[in-house]
Amino acid sequence: MALIVQKFGGTSVGNPERILNVARRVIETQSQGNQVVVVVSAMSGVTDNLIKLARDVSPNPSEREMDVLLATGEQTTIALTAMAIAGLGKKAVSLTGAQAGIVTSETHTKAKIATISPERVLEALEEGNIVIIAGFQGETAEGSITTLGRGGSDLTAIAISAAIKADLCQIFTDVDGVYTCDPRIVKNASKIQEISYDEMLEMASSGSKVMQSRSVEFAKKFGVTFEVRSSFNYNPGTIVKEETESMEAVVVRGVSIEKNQAKVTISHVPDKPGTAARIFTTLATSGVIIDMIVQNVSVEGSTDISFTLSKDELPKAKAALEPVVKEVGASALHSQDGIAKLSIVGIGMRSHSGVAAKLFESLSAGSINIQMISTSEIKTAVIIEEGRIAEAANLVHEAFHLGQASA
Amino acid sequence: MALIVQKFGGTSVGNPERILNVARRVIETQSQGNQVVVVVSAMSGVTDNLIKLARDVSPNPSEREMDVLLATGEQTTIALTAMAIAGLGKKAVSLTGAQAGIVTSETHTKAKIATISPERVLEALEEGNIVIIAGFQGETAEGSITTLGRGGSDLTAIAISAAIKADLCQIFTDVDGVYTCDPRIVKNASKIQEISYDEMLEMASSGSKVMQSRSVEFAKKFGVTFEVRSSFNYNPGTIVKEETESMEAVVVRGVSIEKNQAKVTISHVPDKPGTAARIFTTLATSGVIIDMIVQNVSVEGSTDISFTLSKDELPKAKAALEPVVKEVGASALHSQDGIAKLSIVGIGMRSHSGVAAKLFESLSAGSINIQMISTSEIKTAVIIEEGRIAEAANLVHEAFHLGQASA
Repeated sequence: MALIVQKFGGTSVGNPERILNVARRVIETQSQGNQVVVVVSAMSGVTDNLIKLARDVSPNPSEREMDVLLATGEQTTIALTAMAIAGLGKKAVSLTGAQAGIVTSETHTKAKIATISPERVLEALEEGNIVIIAGFQGETAEGSITTLGRGGSDLTAIAISAAIKADLCQIFTDVDGVYTCDPRIVKNASKIQEISYDEMLEMASSGSKVMQSRSVEFAKKFGVTFEVRSSFNYNPGTIVKEETESMEAVVVRGVSIEKNQAKVTISHVPDKPGTAARIFTTLATSGVIIDMIVQNVSVEGSTDISFTLSKDELPKAKAALEPVVKEVGASALHSQDGIAKLSIVGIGMRSHSGVAAKLFESLSAGSINIQMISTSEIKTAVIIEEGRIAEAANLVHEAFHLGQASA
Repeated sequence: MALIVQKFGGTSVGNPERILNVARRVIETQSQGNQVVVVVSAMSGVTDNLIKLARDVSPNPSEREMDVLLATGEQTTIALTAMAIAGLGKKAVSLTGAQAGIVTSETHTKAKIATISPERVLEALEEGNIVIIAGFQGETAEGSITTLGRGGSDLTAIAISAAIKADLCQIFTDVDGVYTCDPRIVKNASKIQEISYDEMLEMASSGSKVMQSRSVEFAKKFGVTFEVRSSFNYNPGTIVKEETESMEAVVVRGVSIEKNQAKVTISHVPDKPGTAARIFTTLATSGVIIDMIVQNVSVEGSTDISFTLSKDELPKAKAALEPVVKEVGASALHSQDGIAKLSIVGIGMRSHSGVAAKLFESLSAGSINIQMISTSEIKTAVIIEEGRIAEAANLVHEAFHLGQASA
């Protein structure tokens, strides 16, 4: 008998019929001899409606009360899911985040999980129940309702899995798993059977938004193995886990792409201490989120600094930087959109040489120009013209033989 | 500085604009130098929608989960109300029933309040907040969410008033207060300024459904004086309180009418012990709720037993009684609908004689035939033809001078 945590997102519980499907699936898992804990999100659309209501009564609703309001979304789903399971003849009991023992920090709307006291969850399981827990929520030590922010339900599932020492945590979503590249762009992209936490994190941070990074980081920290799989079919998904020796045999696990990027270059920046700090502190205090940073070798006492960011952030970045450019004595600020990022990710890069070279070669073979390069231990990213990103992704995917068999 | 509890029902918080109105009203009360606790219901329509969702996932939803589901209705309203108040510049904090310290029995969907530990309410008041509490809900000692059943939000307001020793409890509703008779039927019905708990209970049980009896009973038990008034205007309402000597000077406080009644007569019931018990036990176990019972004096060893009930209950009652009529040896069962009940209520009846006679006279003057009579210490009720109930109410109202000045 295994102890399994299954998480279903808002689309999977989007209406009564889908909730009944979830109920059937959960019962199936139990009837195979397992104990089952289910974590659910708010039904899709519900959270948006609640936010609209809040805006109708206040231009700037308090975050504490926003949490009280939003927490009703998952509370509705846990009750309906427990009813659906009971209606199909199995014992079920619902628990809010607070009832499940999830204690968080006091940072309303983006609280961090502090501790979990899962006694009620374990008791309810002992009594033969399928236990349904509200994702995305908890309470402070003083008993105020909190929510965990974006990706919070995934985080609940992984944290509960750690707390009750589950044998398996399954994140059901609307995709089949993690792919070697976006299948809408690379037709023969294949589903990845196993991926390490670090690879998953790099994939997420470079455009493959299957899960929020914080959930993966939490899983890594507490060693929770989880599976990302579809709630709409029975295909096996992708297992995310500690890296194993065999994983290193694969040089590149996947190719991530991120469109709608922009590049800013500040030219002839005087090469003296504190200048880069001045520029990036200005961006940070203006709330601009930047991605890659490249600084060329200094020539004749001055250097060029480039960085990339989401195209949407560009106007804000330019407005913030204009006075700074003069202040630090740089000659000009150039910006450009219409670019995209392509990243290859794999822990095998650590022990294999020539990976970056192979990436550059494959792009060169397609006459695709590389505008910027950035590397980390298990990722190599390049910036290219946005219009050629699909072509580039297919070339690189092919070069690393990612489509031939599941990596 | 007074401590005031204000309760607003589902209609009063039915949309964002109305919630803002409630917020303004509450702030007004605070700005007059009072501490304010607000108890709110679910927005009108919300509970029905939730019940519909429940039926969509299960033909017979568990009561425990129904409570988890329905409790989201008031939780939504407390958050929105607190946001609205904060948006208007005043400190506000919301508390669910459980957070407000309301501990109940384990009877889901109709739990009884066991204890209230109002420390968080009092602390929040001390910190200068308007405190918004979810009506209708609490939690068991084990921490499961419960709801209090019909009229539960009124009950919350009265119970919280008792627990925090409020100076005043105001029940805001869609009527102006308690009237000497239904103003739609008796044009010059007047609003009652003060009414005793017992009179209020008798009015409620005989058709004047301003509040559920259980809330009034709770208020009586704990000596909570409350006011029933309108959320749509600033007219003073009706104060419900312990009876005072001056109240007894008024013979009749009000006239209640209840339409859609039916009468069942079982003829020639052998006059021996246990027969009446047999009949009424049968009705009770069939779930038939009956109202007045009249048994005539026994003539020649047999008697007629009549009782009234809601017209809707008649088919169920007849089906249940048919075998019993034969069994006890009665001759026949007759039923009749198209009748109505008129009651006069007043604690002054205890010390004034001739009240019933005056009632009968006034009806007789209008040639209205009395079919059944039932009396209690502070109420006299008669059954008459339903088609003449408006005429009867006006005659009786006039006979007791109820329209001339506020009683």
